[in-house]
Amino acid sequence: MSRGKAASHLDLPRPDSLDAGKQQGAYDALRAAILNRQLPAGSRLPSTRSLAERWLVSRGTLEAAFERLHSEGYVQRVAGSGTRVSAVIPEQFIAAPAPSASSRRAAIPDQPDAGVQSHVPFVARRPDASLFDLKTWARCISRGLLSAGPGVLEAAHPAGLPALREQIADYVRSYRGMHCEADEIVVTTGIRHGLDLIARTLLKPGDTACVEDPGYTPARRLFSLAGAQVVPVPVTAEGLDTAQLPDTARLAYVTPAHQAPLGMTLSVSRRLALLDWAARADAWVVEDDYDSEYNYNSAPLAALKSLDSGDRVIYCGSFNKNLFPGLRVGFMVVPKALRPALLRTLQLTGHSVGATDQSGLVEFLASGAFVRHLRASRQAYQARRDALLACLPDECPVSGQHAGLHFVLWLPSGVEESEFCTRAAAAGLTLQPLGKFCVAANLPAAVIIGYTALTLAQIRYHGRVLTQLLTAA
Amino acid sequence: MSRGKAASHLDLPRPDSLDAGKQQGAYDALRAAILNRQLPAGSRLPSTRSLAERWLVSRGTLEAAFERLHSEGYVQRVAGSGTRVSAVIPEQFIAAPAPSASSRRAAIPDQPDAGVQSHVPFVARRPDASLFDLKTWARCISRGLLSAGPGVLEAAHPAGLPALREQIADYVRSYRGMHCEADEIVVTTGIRHGLDLIARTLLKPGDTACVEDPGYTPARRLFSLAGAQVVPVPVTAEGLDTAQLPDTARLAYVTPAHQAPLGMTLSVSRRLALLDWAARADAWVVEDDYDSEYNYNSAPLAALKSLDSGDRVIYCGSFNKNLFPGLRVGFMVVPKALRPALLRTLQLTGHSVGATDQSGLVEFLASGAFVRHLRASRQAYQARRDALLACLPDECPVSGQHAGLHFVLWLPSGVEESEFCTRAAAAGLTLQPLGKFCVAANLPAAVIIGYTALTLAQIRYHGRVLTQLLTAA
Repeated sequence: MSRGKAASHLDLPRPDSLDAGKQQGAYDALRAAILNRQLPAGSRLPSTRSLAERWLVSRGTLEAAFERLHSEGYVQRVAGSGTRVSAVIPEQFIAAPAPSASSRRAAIPDQPDAGVQSHVPFVARRPDASLFDLKTWARCISRGLLSAGPGVLEAAHPAGLPALREQIADYVRSYRGMHCEADEIVVTTGIRHGLDLIARTLLKPGDTACVEDPGYTPARRLFSLAGAQVVPVPVTAEGLDTAQLPDTARLAYVTPAHQAPLGMTLSVSRRLALLDWAARADAWVVEDDYDSEYNYNSAPLAALKSLDSGDRVIYCGSFNKNLFPGLRVGFMVVPKALRPALLRTLQLTGHSVGATDQSGLVEFLASGAFVRHLRASRQAYQARRDALLACLPDECPVSGQHAGLHFVLWLPSGVEESEFCTRAAAAGLTLQPLGKFCVAANLPAAVIIGYTALTLAQIRYHGRVLTQLLTAA
Repeated sequence: MSRGKAASHLDLPRPDSLDAGKQQGAYDALRAAILNRQLPAGSRLPSTRSLAERWLVSRGTLEAAFERLHSEGYVQRVAGSGTRVSAVIPEQFIAAPAPSASSRRAAIPDQPDAGVQSHVPFVARRPDASLFDLKTWARCISRGLLSAGPGVLEAAHPAGLPALREQIADYVRSYRGMHCEADEIVVTTGIRHGLDLIARTLLKPGDTACVEDPGYTPARRLFSLAGAQVVPVPVTAEGLDTAQLPDTARLAYVTPAHQAPLGMTLSVSRRLALLDWAARADAWVVEDDYDSEYNYNSAPLAALKSLDSGDRVIYCGSFNKNLFPGLRVGFMVVPKALRPALLRTLQLTGHSVGATDQSGLVEFLASGAFVRHLRASRQAYQARRDALLACLPDECPVSGQHAGLHFVLWLPSGVEESEFCTRAAAAGLTLQPLGKFCVAANLPAAVIIGYTALTLAQIRYHGRVLTQLLTAA
């Protein structure tokens, strides 16, 4: 990739599509040129004036197309230096080299208290619901319900509406590198629902379930609720220490894209070792891919499930983090051998997702509104992260800031986590100590910082408060 | 109630409300006169001509108001004999005397196969989704989402949106005679979800859970899934035989309004005995009130929960049967002592209902669309039931035809249930044998007949087929 090189923009032909919706046509042509590297990363785009002359459209039309490319993360606009193609464009999330272990990323479990408001600093794992376009959503619901007609109101297939499963399969093929069909998708209310179905279907009392340590607490609790003996397995710089998985376990739960909460990516060698272990131990692997949509400076590996030639990985994804928390729609990609048993549990327990949300989501995905929302929210979150990082003192390192909705802030030596959190609470900050995610792990003192649901002004104000607490510590 | 008595309609004053929406005003005034017995059950309404002269409105306005009263079940219109107040008006569902044991009503469990289409004769427990007004629903969703704003998109309280719980509390107070507050409501995805939450919260492996025999199979299976020992308790003409409940049980599951599947109402003395047993045994009672909205000729008792002075009854209701099966919204009314534990289970397992459906349902209930839909669907189902009963031969008695979405058809002596169902299947009819609902109970041969999702033409056609099978048997 040649950063800064001037683009050979004079070769861009006037797109035919201009005549049908000029602004959309200009956007499509420029986006295609970025994707096929005709406009490489870092290159400068032609000015709107020169392009307006060549393409015989108004500058206003081009300005609107540039703004859309900007809001979706394809280009950066800097006053005085024009518009440049972003270093990493949204579609590059797949097929990038594995990040080194030193570029660890944070990814944080659910808050325990659902009553906590998103705008409280620095509550973790909260998307900003105000970025979500309610009018578009309401229109998708209407269109979905009225175009589908009364048939969609019948008790749906327990796996979910076929049209929605097609859309989800398309999405995970394009964005997570999996080769999956609609028949492998099961619609859920979110990741917890998926984990609960897995636990109730696969685990008998006394079975062993392995979880990361530190790790996602609700996974531990759901496996325990099913009667399993939960075994914590350490995490190293490469992610879950697969060498320590017992061959007697029935399943292992893992967060390969961004370990929850520490944020590293499971290395390729560990991914292969994990799949080998599953084959040898005749065990299942649960992949929780809860916030892989949010990557700011680097690109994640494709999902672990994309390497799963033995069909032993159950992939869990969710729309509750990337659309809005109150949505309650997620999905699983399930091995063929497990599908009938999982559907029996789902049907008996009656927790399937309503037809209204399902048919609305079909429209939302098919119309492109979903991918547009992802791009716009990714850019907003990146700006918020940057503003917060700019506030923090140099002597307090962070990790996991490259991705996800949160990062880990390591405390100055000698500072005790829970004592620091108590002082922070007195100053109006809600922080989670890292120790809360540990079973046997003994890690340096750190707290989890969420920033995605705060405005830039809130971030600057509360970031200063946080810095005062850190420097006084 | 004096049936057939002429109404003193000359005393009806011209309603003030006529000037604001004449048709609505005429409807409101006539409905109020019916509810306050100024127009008693069975009485004849004034003709539209005479009323038009007295009220200074057009006959067309009155004709429209009469039609609406008719479609909602307040009046019957017979060509040549005018318009009469119905014997049982919708609001009389509460405060009516207990039906005698001989007027048994049918009420049928879920079909095991969610793939079965509603329009297959005579699949049971299927509402007719085509009666549901999708446009009104889509409008309620839009209005609910846009008036509530982004706040509604946050992870809601696990018990459900406060505005929805207020509406549900209003509804059960008005229609099921319970004195309950919004804080006692927990929103679920339906009755199975409620039963599952109860089982997972209250039952430990080895606990005893009592269920009716014959009874609702998924209740047995959900209690078993939680590790409970499930004890079947016989049903007599008065409903669950409370004398046979063991004092060691942790809970008893019961369908007081219409025993599933036999259809009798639990008598008042049995209701009191059940509550006494719960107090003595320190046990809980689960009341499944799954289709009490549909009563055709008679009025049910108020809910068992309305007598629950000891706060030991967990009431389960659902909108999936009375609106459309794909909706996936129900609710529980829970004792104060159980609320925290039930909410902890709900929150851990992540099965809460989405904000889109919840805010739409607030609008649907508050606008009166819900009660209008109930009235219109009740009248449609009554007509379908009548058409089917008119087809059947006199020598095959039915029971439970007074209420619910189905009835029990007793087979001629000597006919074996499953053999009859096999012959029916060959003729295109999907019947459920009564034996399927029995554990130890030994009852005469019968099948469960659902008619609510079929058109009148389908009912007449397939009713003839059914009659041929019965008379050939």
